[in-house]
Amino acid sequence: MVIVMKKNATGDQIEQIIKWVESVGYRAHPSRGVERTIIGVVGDDRAKSQLKSAEYLPGVEKVMPILKPYKLASRETKDGNTIIRIGNLEIGGPKFIIMAGPCSIESEEQLMESAYIVKKGGAHILRGGAFKPRTSPYSFQGLEVEGLKLLEKVREKTGLPVITEVMNTTDVDLVGEHTDILQVGARNIQNFALLKKVGQASKPVLLKRGMATTIEEFLMSAEYILSSGNDQVILCERGIRTFETATRNTLDISAIPVLKELTHLPIIVDPSHASGNWKYVLPLSRAAVAVGADGLLIEVHPEPEKALSDGIQSLKPEKFYQLMKEVMSLERTMRTEIEALQ
Amino acid sequence: MVIVMKKNATGDQIEQIIKWVESVGYRAHPSRGVERTIIGVVGDDRAKSQLKSAEYLPGVEKVMPILKPYKLASRETKDGNTIIRIGNLEIGGPKFIIMAGPCSIESEEQLMESAYIVKKGGAHILRGGAFKPRTSPYSFQGLEVEGLKLLEKVREKTGLPVITEVMNTTDVDLVGEHTDILQVGARNIQNFALLKKVGQASKPVLLKRGMATTIEEFLMSAEYILSSGNDQVILCERGIRTFETATRNTLDISAIPVLKELTHLPIIVDPSHASGNWKYVLPLSRAAVAVGADGLLIEVHPEPEKALSDGIQSLKPEKFYQLMKEVMSLERTMRTEIEALQ
Amino acid sequence: MVIVMKKNATGDQIEQIIKWVESVGYRAHPSRGVERTIIGVVGDDRAKSQLKSAEYLPGVEKVMPILKPYKLASRETKDGNTIIRIGNLEIGGPKFIIMAGPCSIESEEQLMESAYIVKKGGAHILRGGAFKPRTSPYSFQGLEVEGLKLLEKVREKTGLPVITEVMNTTDVDLVGEHTDILQVGARNIQNFALLKKVGQASKPVLLKRGMATTIEEFLMSAEYILSSGNDQVILCERGIRTFETATRNTLDISAIPVLKELTHLPIIVDPSHASGNWKYVLPLSRAAVAVGADGLLIEVHPEPEKALSDGIQSLKPEKFYQLMKEVMSLERTMRTEIEALQ
Amino acid sequence: MVIVMKKNATGDQIEQIIKWVESVGYRAHPSRGVERTIIGVVGDDRAKSQLKSAEYLPGVEKVMPILKPYKLASRETKDGNTIIRIGNLEIGGPKFIIMAGPCSIESEEQLMESAYIVKKGGAHILRGGAFKPRTSPYSFQGLEVEGLKLLEKVREKTGLPVITEVMNTTDVDLVGEHTDILQVGARNIQNFALLKKVGQASKPVLLKRGMATTIEEFLMSAEYILSSGNDQVILCERGIRTFETATRNTLDISAIPVLKELTHLPIIVDPSHASGNWKYVLPLSRAAVAVGADGLLIEVHPEPEKALSDGIQSLKPEKFYQLMKEVMSLERTMRTEIEALQ
Repeated sequence: MVIVMKKNATGDQIEQIIKWVESVGYRAHPSRGVERTIIGVVGDDRAKSQLKSAEYLPGVEKVMPILKPYKLASRETKDGNTIIRIGNLEIGGPKFIIMAGPCSIESEEQLMESAYIVKKGGAHILRGGAFKPRTSPYSFQGLEVEGLKLLEKVREKTGLPVITEVMNTTDVDLVGEHTDILQVGARNIQNFALLKKVGQASKPVLLKRGMATTIEEFLMSAEYILSSGNDQVILCERGIRTFETATRNTLDISAIPVLKELTHLPIIVDPSHASGNWKYVLPLSRAAVAVGADGLLIEVHPEPEKALSDGIQSLKPEKFYQLMKEVMSLERTMRTEIEALQ
Repeated sequence: MVIVMKKNATGDQIEQIIKWVESVGYRAHPSRGVERTIIGVVGDDRAKSQLKSAEYLPGVEKVMPILKPYKLASRETKDGNTIIRIGNLEIGGPKFIIMAGPCSIESEEQLMESAYIVKKGGAHILRGGAFKPRTSPYSFQGLEVEGLKLLEKVREKTGLPVITEVMNTTDVDLVGEHTDILQVGARNIQNFALLKKVGQASKPVLLKRGMATTIEEFLMSAEYILSSGNDQVILCERGIRTFETATRNTLDISAIPVLKELTHLPIIVDPSHASGNWKYVLPLSRAAVAVGADGLLIEVHPEPEKALSDGIQSLKPEKFYQLMKEVMSLERTMRTEIEALQ
Repeated sequence: MVIVMKKNATGDQIEQIIKWVESVGYRAHPSRGVERTIIGVVGDDRAKSQLKSAEYLPGVEKVMPILKPYKLASRETKDGNTIIRIGNLEIGGPKFIIMAGPCSIESEEQLMESAYIVKKGGAHILRGGAFKPRTSPYSFQGLEVEGLKLLEKVREKTGLPVITEVMNTTDVDLVGEHTDILQVGARNIQNFALLKKVGQASKPVLLKRGMATTIEEFLMSAEYILSSGNDQVILCERGIRTFETATRNTLDISAIPVLKELTHLPIIVDPSHASGNWKYVLPLSRAAVAVGADGLLIEVHPEPEKALSDGIQSLKPEKFYQLMKEVMSLERTMRTEIEALQ
Repeated sequence: MVIVMKKNATGDQIEQIIKWVESVGYRAHPSRGVERTIIGVVGDDRAKSQLKSAEYLPGVEKVMPILKPYKLASRETKDGNTIIRIGNLEIGGPKFIIMAGPCSIESEEQLMESAYIVKKGGAHILRGGAFKPRTSPYSFQGLEVEGLKLLEKVREKTGLPVITEVMNTTDVDLVGEHTDILQVGARNIQNFALLKKVGQASKPVLLKRGMATTIEEFLMSAEYILSSGNDQVILCERGIRTFETATRNTLDISAIPVLKELTHLPIIVDPSHASGNWKYVLPLSRAAVAVGADGLLIEVHPEPEKALSDGIQSLKPEKFYQLMKEVMSLERTMRTEIEALQ
C-alpha cells in the first residue's frame, strides 16, 4: 500500500499518518518528493481493506494498493500449471480439450443424438444444461432433476464425461452425483454462497467469467473456491458486456494471455455465448486455439432451429464437424511449429 | 416480432418463412418494401424465444422483437403506483424515504450508535449487513446470525424498521424472521434461485440493479419475484460499471425517469455504492431527490475510518445530518413548487 | 511515480533500477516491504512518459504514476473558480446559466422563432448548429456559412449571445467572428489540432466530453486549450457510452462533483444529448441543478417533429417553459437553503 | 422502418400515423397484432432521419429502423473484396500483410534502424508517426514535417512503402506527398472534416476504429471517405474501451468476422494499441491470423525502453522476428489446410 499525501499536506499531517499506520500494525516509509510526499506501508496489505480508510484522514490524497489480492490462484504461490484429470483426459495439459453439446437438455433423444455428434466430431466432454438460468421467468427453465438423470444415462451409454450447471447451493450435492464437472455460470460469478459450496465439493468446477467481471475479480472468485478446499478450478472466458451490440457479448481474447501470465489455472473459451451467433463460432474458435487457450466450450444441437434455448448460437452437426477439423489443424501447428519458437 | 428478409431473398424463401411462422402457431403479415420484405408475426411474442430461431432459416436477415418481455412489472398491467407499507411508512408514496446505516454490522455498540444517528437525523429505516458479499474470501464476511440478532435487538429498542441482505436461498426464511425488508444485492441480480425464493417470502424485497444489468433485465429480475407471488418489490439504482474509474461505479441517474415510465414499482437510489466516496454522496443525494426517486439508501458510520468495510464511502454523523437537511429542503421544493408545474 | 518490483526481484535488479532512475535524472527512494520492494521516484513525473518504460527492465512488476497529469486545469494551480464573462452574463458564477436552441439552424424563420422561445422562457444564450457532425454522410450537414450569418442576424435582433460548433481548424477564425462561444463537440474531444487552434482564439470555448473520455482525459483536453493560451474553457458533461441502450448515452451525473473537486473551470450539463429523448430532459435538468452544475445546454425546437436533426430529443416550447420554471425554482432552493448548509 | 404503436393506441391514432407516413412520401403497411399494431413504412429509410420523429406523434411507442445505414461500404453493393494495391503488394488479397515500425519517428538513425528490422523480419510496410496524437500537450508531439522527410528518405533507401498518420485537414496534401498510405487515428474516427478531406485524396486510407465506435458507426465513417470519392479504405481494429483495465483496450476480435460479413473492405488488426503491452502482442497476432484478418499493424522499436512514446507496447527486434515466424507458420496452415475446409 502506498499513501499519497496532498500537495499542501503539512509536516504535522504527515506525522499523524505515520503514527496511524503504525497504530494499525504496519511500518511507514515516507519519501518526500518535489510535489508530494508518499508513504510506503510495509506489511501484507492483502485482506487489509481497513487501510483504505486512510483516505479519510487529513492531508491524504489517495491510497494505492500494491499487492494483488489473490494468493492461491496466483503463479506466485504455485510452480507449473494446474492440470485437471477426468479419467484419461487432462484439462490444462498439452492437449486442447473440447466440451460440446446442447444449451439445454430437452429430451433423451435430443441429448443422445447430441452426444453422438460430439463423439463423432472427436470432442472430449459432453455439455448440457439441466438447470437453466434464463433472463425471463416465462422461458423454459430446464428439465431439472429429470435432465440430470438423462445426462447420467447418456454418459453411461457413450462413455463421454459430462459437465452441467449448478445454480443453487442446495443442488450442489445432487448435481455433483450426476456430473463430472460442476459449472458455475456467468450470472453466479459473485454468488459467494455458491462459490463456497462448490469449493467444498469433490468435483472440478468450471467457473465462467461474469459479464462485468474484471480479470482480478475473476481470480478472486476462483480464490473463493480454492480457499474453500477445492483446487480443481477451470476458468472460462465467455465474453464481456460492452457498448457493442453486433455480437451478444464481446469476447475478451486478450484475457487468455493475461490469465496465463497471472494464474496456473487452465483457461478455456466459450465462443458460442461470446458471439451469440453460430456464424462467428468457427473463426473465434480458431482464434482461441491460436491465442493459447486450453480448450473450448461449444454449443451444438441436432436441429438448432428447433432448440428451446440459444438456438441461434448453436452449430448444426456439419458445421461442428468442420470446426473440429479446423481446430485440430491449428492445434497441430501450435504444438509443432509455434511451440518450437517459444 | 418482425422478421426482416435479406435484400436478395427469393419469393420462395418468403413463402417458406410464412409457412414456418404458421407452423409454430402464429399468423404472418408480409409487407414488401422497396429494398426488403418484412414479415410481421402476429401472436404474443413474449416467452417465445423459439421464434428467434427464424434467423437460422434461408433468406432471413434478422428477427426483431416488438413487445417488452415483462408483464407484471409493466405499467401496462397495473394502474397507479405500487406502494409498499411498513408500519406507518409508505415506500413509493408521496413521501421521500431514507434508509441509512452502516455497511456491516460490527458490534452491538456500533449498530446501536448508528441507529441513534439515523433516528436523530430523521431517516426512516435502519440498514446494516449481517451477511456480506465481499470480493475477497479473506475480507470480513459479516457477523451472520449474530448480526441478525443484533439487528432485531436494535429494532426493538429504537422502533426503526430494518433492512438487511440475504445471499443464499437457505437463509431466506431465517433472515425474513429478523428483518422488515429483504435486500437482494447487485451481485445476485440474476441469481434466479434466490429471486424465486424471495418471491415466496412474505416480506418486501429491495432489489439492487447489477453492475452490468440493463433496465430491461432489471425489470425481468423483478418479474421473477413478482411472478413467484411477491408483489412487494422496491428497485434500487446503485450505479453501473463503465470505463470511468473516478467513481467506484457510474450512477445511472437517467434510470429513474426511465423506470418511472416503464414500471409501477418504487425506485430508490444508493449514492454510497454508486460513487464509492463519501465526498460525492451529498450532491448525488440531492440529484436523486430532484430527478424524482422515491428514496435513498445511505451508508453512515459512527467512525468510518474504523469501519470493517466500505469506510471510505460512509458518511460521518455530521455529514449525514447535513444530508438529511438538504434532502428535506429539496423535497419540500419538489412537493410544493415542482409538483404544481407538472 | 512508484516502481513496484516483482516478488522475486533480486538485490541486484533493485540496484540496477535505482541506477536507471538516477541516470534519467530522478532520485530513487526504495522501501523494502515484506513481500515487495517499491521504489519512489522523486522528481516531476508529469510529461515524463519515458519513466513508464521502466516496466521493460528486469525485476519490475509495474510502474504507478502519482501525480495528476494536468496542471493549468487543476485547482492546485489556481485559487477560486474561473468565471467566464459574456457581456453581463457570468458562466461559473453564482447564477445558473441556460443555453438553449435548436440542434441545427434550418432557416431564418426557424432560428428566429427558436430565439423568441428561448428568450421568452428566460434562458440566457442561444445555441444552434451551422456545421453539423452527423454519423451519416447522407444526413443534413448544416447550412454552414449561411447558418453563421443567420446566427449573427438573430443575435443582433434579439440581443441574445450565441454559441455554435466548430469542426475544422480552417473554420475557427470564421466561426469566431460570428459567435460568442466556440463549441467543440464530443467527437472532437481528442482532435488535438482543433484543440490547439481554439486555444489560440480569443473567444470562450465550450468543450464537450467525448463518449469514451475519462474525466482525467477530459481535463487533459481542456489543458490543450489552456496551454495554448486560452483560459476561457467551459466543460460540458453530455453523457458517456455504456452498455445501457434505454437512453442514447448515460448521463454521468457524478462527473459534476468530481470535476468541481478537481478543477476551477465551470461545468454545465447537456441532458438532451445525454438522454436522447425529450421525455427525460426535465428530470435530468432538475438533477443537474441539484447536483451543483453551473448551467444547462438544452435543445428546443418550435416543431420538433419536423426538425432536420435530433427532433426526438428536442423540447416543444411548452415543455421548455415548464423546464425553465422548474429549474428556477430549484435554483432558488439551492441558492438560499442548501448553500446555507454547506 | 417499422412504427410500433402503443398497446392502447386508438384506431384514430393509427389512421393519423398512416396519413403522416404518406404525407412525408412513404407508403404504410399496418398489421394488427394481438397486443400491438405495427406499421411497416415502405420506401428507402436510409438518410431519412426525419422518420424517427414519428416517436413524437400520439399513440406511437417506438420507431425501429430496418435497413443498414451504409451503402458503399456494404457487401450488398459490391461483389467480391476490395483489394488495395501498393506497388506489388495487395492488401485484402490472399496474402497476409504486416505493417510494422516505431510509434514515433524520433531520429533518422532510429527510423533507419527500425526499417532494417522490419525488412529483415519479412514485414511489408513501414509505419512511423510524424504527427502524434498525445493525450497530454506536454508529451512529445512528433517531429512533424521533419519526420515526413525522414520517412521519405528511408523509403527511398529501403524500398519499403510507408504509412503515417494525418491529424489535420490542412496537412492532408502534404502528408499525402510523403507517404503511401494515409492513417486516420482512432481519436479522429468521427472527425468528419478530416474524413471528407482524405476522401478527396488519391492515396489509400487506413481508418482506425475509435475507442467507443460501434461496428455500424465504423462503417459509416468509412462511408464518408468512400462517398467523397476515395474507394481505397483499409479498416483497422485496435481495441475498444471497456471496464477491463488489465489491458490498455479490449481487442474486439469478433469484429473481424462481423466486418468480413458486412463489408468488402480489408480489415487489419493492431494488437500493440489493443493490449498496450508487448507481452500480449504475440498471442494476439496469432489470434488475428487465425480469425481471418487481412494483416497486422505492429509497433517495433530498436530500443523500446528508450522510446519517446508507447515504449511498453513496442516489441524488441528479437521478439518481432519471432512474431514474424509464428505469423508465417499460422498463415501457411490457414492458406492450405483451413481454406480447404471452408
